[in-house]
Amino acid sequence: MFLKNHWYIAARAGEIGRAPLGRVICGVPLVLFRTEAGAPAALSNVCSHRRAPLDKGKLAGDAIVCPYHGMRFDAGGRCVRIPGQETIPAEAHIDAFPAVERWDLVWVWMGAPGAADPAAIPARPWRADPAWNAESTHYYHVKASHLLMTDNLLDLGHVAYIHADTIGFDAAVLEKDPLVTEVDGERVRNTRIVENIEPAPAVKGWGGFTGRVDRVSISDWTPPCYTAIQFANRSRSGEGAVEFRIDHFPTPETDRTMHYWVLVSRNFRIGDAELTRRIHADNDRVAAQDIDIVEAQQRMIDLAPGRRDMPIRQDKGLVAAHRILARLARAEAAARRTRAAAAARSLSRSAAGTRRAAPRR
Amino acid sequence: MFLKNHWYIAARAGEIGRAPLGRVICGVPLVLFRTEAGAPAALSNVCSHRRAPLDKGKLAGDAIVCPYHGMRFDAGGRCVRIPGQETIPAEAHIDAFPAVERWDLVWVWMGAPGAADPAAIPARPWRADPAWNAESTHYYHVKASHLLMTDNLLDLGHVAYIHADTIGFDAAVLEKDPLVTEVDGERVRNTRIVENIEPAPAVKGWGGFTGRVDRVSISDWTPPCYTAIQFANRSRSGEGAVEFRIDHFPTPETDRTMHYWVLVSRNFRIGDAELTRRIHADNDRVAAQDIDIVEAQQRMIDLAPGRRDMPIRQDKGLVAAHRILARLARAEAAARRTRAAAAARSLSRSAAGTRRAAPRR
Amino acid sequence: MFLKNHWYIAARAGEIGRAPLGRVICGVPLVLFRTEAGAPAALSNVCSHRRAPLDKGKLAGDAIVCPYHGMRFDAGGRCVRIPGQETIPAEAHIDAFPAVERWDLVWVWMGAPGAADPAAIPARPWRADPAWNAESTHYYHVKASHLLMTDNLLDLGHVAYIHADTIGFDAAVLEKDPLVTEVDGERVRNTRIVENIEPAPAVKGWGGFTGRVDRVSISDWTPPCYTAIQFANRSRSGEGAVEFRIDHFPTPETDRTMHYWVLVSRNFRIGDAELTRRIHADNDRVAAQDIDIVEAQQRMIDLAPGRRDMPIRQDKGLVAAHRILARLARAEAAARRTRAAAAARSLSRSAAGTRRAAPRR
Repeated sequence: MFLKNHWYIAARAGEIGRAPLGRVICGVPLVLFRTEAGAPAALSNVCSHRRAPLDKGKLAGDAIVCPYHGMRFDAGGRCVRIPGQETIPAEAHIDAFPAVERWDLVWVWMGAPGAADPAAIPARPWRADPAWNAESTHYYHVKASHLLMTDNLLDLGHVAYIHADTIGFDAAVLEKDPLVTEVDGERVRNTRIVENIEPAPAVKGWGGFTGRVDRVSISDWTPPCYTAIQFANRSRSGEGAVEFRIDHFPTPETDRTMHYWVLVSRNFRIGDAELTRRIHADNDRVAAQDIDIVEAQQRMIDLAPGRRDMPIRQDKGLVAAHRILARLARAEAAARRTRAAAAARSLSRSAAGTRRAAPRR
Repeated sequence: MFLKNHWYIAARAGEIGRAPLGRVICGVPLVLFRTEAGAPAALSNVCSHRRAPLDKGKLAGDAIVCPYHGMRFDAGGRCVRIPGQETIPAEAHIDAFPAVERWDLVWVWMGAPGAADPAAIPARPWRADPAWNAESTHYYHVKASHLLMTDNLLDLGHVAYIHADTIGFDAAVLEKDPLVTEVDGERVRNTRIVENIEPAPAVKGWGGFTGRVDRVSISDWTPPCYTAIQFANRSRSGEGAVEFRIDHFPTPETDRTMHYWVLVSRNFRIGDAELTRRIHADNDRVAAQDIDIVEAQQRMIDLAPGRRDMPIRQDKGLVAAHRILARLARAEAAARRTRAAAAARSLSRSAAGTRRAAPRR
Repeated sequence: MFLKNHWYIAARAGEIGRAPLGRVICGVPLVLFRTEAGAPAALSNVCSHRRAPLDKGKLAGDAIVCPYHGMRFDAGGRCVRIPGQETIPAEAHIDAFPAVERWDLVWVWMGAPGAADPAAIPARPWRADPAWNAESTHYYHVKASHLLMTDNLLDLGHVAYIHADTIGFDAAVLEKDPLVTEVDGERVRNTRIVENIEPAPAVKGWGGFTGRVDRVSISDWTPPCYTAIQFANRSRSGEGAVEFRIDHFPTPETDRTMHYWVLVSRNFRIGDAELTRRIHADNDRVAAQDIDIVEAQQRMIDLAPGRRDMPIRQDKGLVAAHRILARLARAEAAARRTRAAAAARSLSRSAAGTRRAAPRR
């Protein structure tokens, strides 16, 4: 029920080291660690021997040692030692998941390992650009499907309601300058430009604006769950701009729970630690409002499971994203059926135990 | 699995006002509020747009505004505003439940709205009679099926056991003056009259009795879950009586949880606030004993799900009530099938989208 | 899903008295008490009348009185009193479970009562031998299937990992002197003898050893869940030995929870209370390590339910035990089918209500 052929964030880079870390992503229990050379590794957290969790074990070189009986697995998931026996059968190996460190995050590929292409990791260059302050990273554990947060992010209509006392957009403004939604392949972009408006007092100070500005918000969504939001105030004379980039990664843990990473970057006063601290606190307040509503939605969905959503006009982007997700899910299901049929044919041709070679995901 | 065509208590009158109140009744999440004119309203708590809970929203005049995106619904469940669009499709409306304020309570009709008749609300005139003190109202949230509390109330046999140290009836007395059970249509009445007995010391003082009294207890049950119990001490000379009326409303929240309202009225010393306080505390102790046993029963039922109850002779009233409930459930199921068949015929006659008109409950 | 035709530990002898005790064994809610003569009794904890838990009731002589309405049941499960009626129908009786006190424990037979043979209770004579100190009894409630603890006990390979800092066996030693596994009917014995080794400092003092010793560990498993472990240090000259017997009883409560009794006996310094206290604390630490890993295993099994264990060479004993358990389960299932077929034939021969006589377990 989760899209598999995608890179998901498993952790911030700093969370993963030589002490194994257990984390569930897309319903799959993973153990995360770094090799001696510092490369991130992601394996099934379930020992092939007796199903003990490997994250309670320790590393021996680049191998992880099961806490229960000392089975060892290298960073590719191959079992390299079974205590008390020489032979290591193929069944002893465990699933490994391609893992890549990028943008100060560790990404794992949950699909067929052969299909993993690091070039598909979404580009967030401002996270590594010295002209930007990228110090602010939030993590929340949320008791709701990650799809509800994806919906929340694709929909700027809620800002006037849920965030009335934080982000503080005015409902009248929202309706005067409506959202422009563009769908380009698998990308959904929502743009709202409010032209020729007074900057908010704080923004005036930050940007040194003397006159009116254009206020731009652009949200870019790509599957399965990446949303980059850009909030900018631009002077009409072209003399300056202050800009935030807020990257949202609501990542499935289980059906009804998510990991939610929010990364905040800005291109002004980047050395101002007090401002960083203040913006971090502000974003905590905004996220708490979103989390509160999506957790309440999840409770209602569970209480009244027969109901469906009813999209309205301003949900154009959201509807487009749902269609993309449904199309990708159908494609993955078709590919699984094809692989299963091929595996069945291969099995019927050779009596020998080639079962293990069949893809399991 | 709940009887629908009945008035259920949703709240005490004072609980409902201009701040929306969320409450689940018969498994249905409701939002309760009052119109500007003060009339109670009950709607589905699930917004038709994105299933956010309306009770987190606010009122605008007589409409409730969804907290998430500002959808508005009037007190009849009609969607009257969708932000950013003019057209309001029929799918935007939400279920409304007839709501009536009576006896200081708000009653909701969970069945087909057209069938709601306020005359069917059970009469409790002592709750509005100045000759009675009706100040004492208890609310308990109980982790058991409301049917277990209904059983408890239909059965006065448990009083000698569970309430040995509170109500304090003597098992020997109970067997000497047995319960008389009368079934009249959908009403089940249990009567026990103990004649020519000394009044209890407290009762002697309250009633100013000089001689022996008759002790009368009558319990009237009507479906789905209303029990009125009357406890009276009457002088044999006809010179006086002290009487309690205790109204019990164990109302289904879910399969395994209930709202439990207990309303205590008395016809003596009605201005004695200290006595009111004392009686309230006594009733809390009695209710705690009932709640303790029905929650324990529910745990046993869940642990040993294959077992059934075995009625005994003193369960005559309870068995009668179970039969009435089963008969009403069969009638509601038959009516649902009839409506569904009619809707199917109507659909096959006209291709046009009349689906929405088909009854949903 | 549990083996029924076995004696399970329900409690330590001292836990059962004239105050009824509720406990779930093999998924069955039981009430445990003693008759006036002191014999242990075990009945279904579910009253036949309204399913109230009998353990909230009181004893009247040798009968237990239901807390709710005063139904009474003797120690054999026969209903002996129904308030307000003379006739006691067969449906009023409740299941009774043969209960025997032995080795300071109370054992209950969960299968067909006629098949209960106290001779099948596993022998633990050191628990009643004055030459042994048998004062130390541990009870733990564990959130995992009891089978995971059975596996743990059949497998001495984990000692070098989980108990590295407590029992402190060395992995190299374990591999040099491997386990010998013997299967004899329904018994699985694992033996490891390390010969001609220095005793540990503490052991040297306890045993007064002057030279090297042989270190012996023998674990005897019998179905459904009994493991007796013997740890001994024996002088090579034959002049002395210090020995522990540790009896483990991981008993099913539900599918995913167990009662876990650990009984520690020793044959040296039996009057040394300080040593008893210290050994008790040590065993608590060892048990905490086992409980930690089996609860973690259970969580992984629940998260990744499709996986199976993969036995390794050192699991020989464990594999043998699993085979024995599977064989016993098949035999019980076959016997159930035979009894059900016989009951069906008997029913079809006589129209009269002999249903109750058919075995229910």
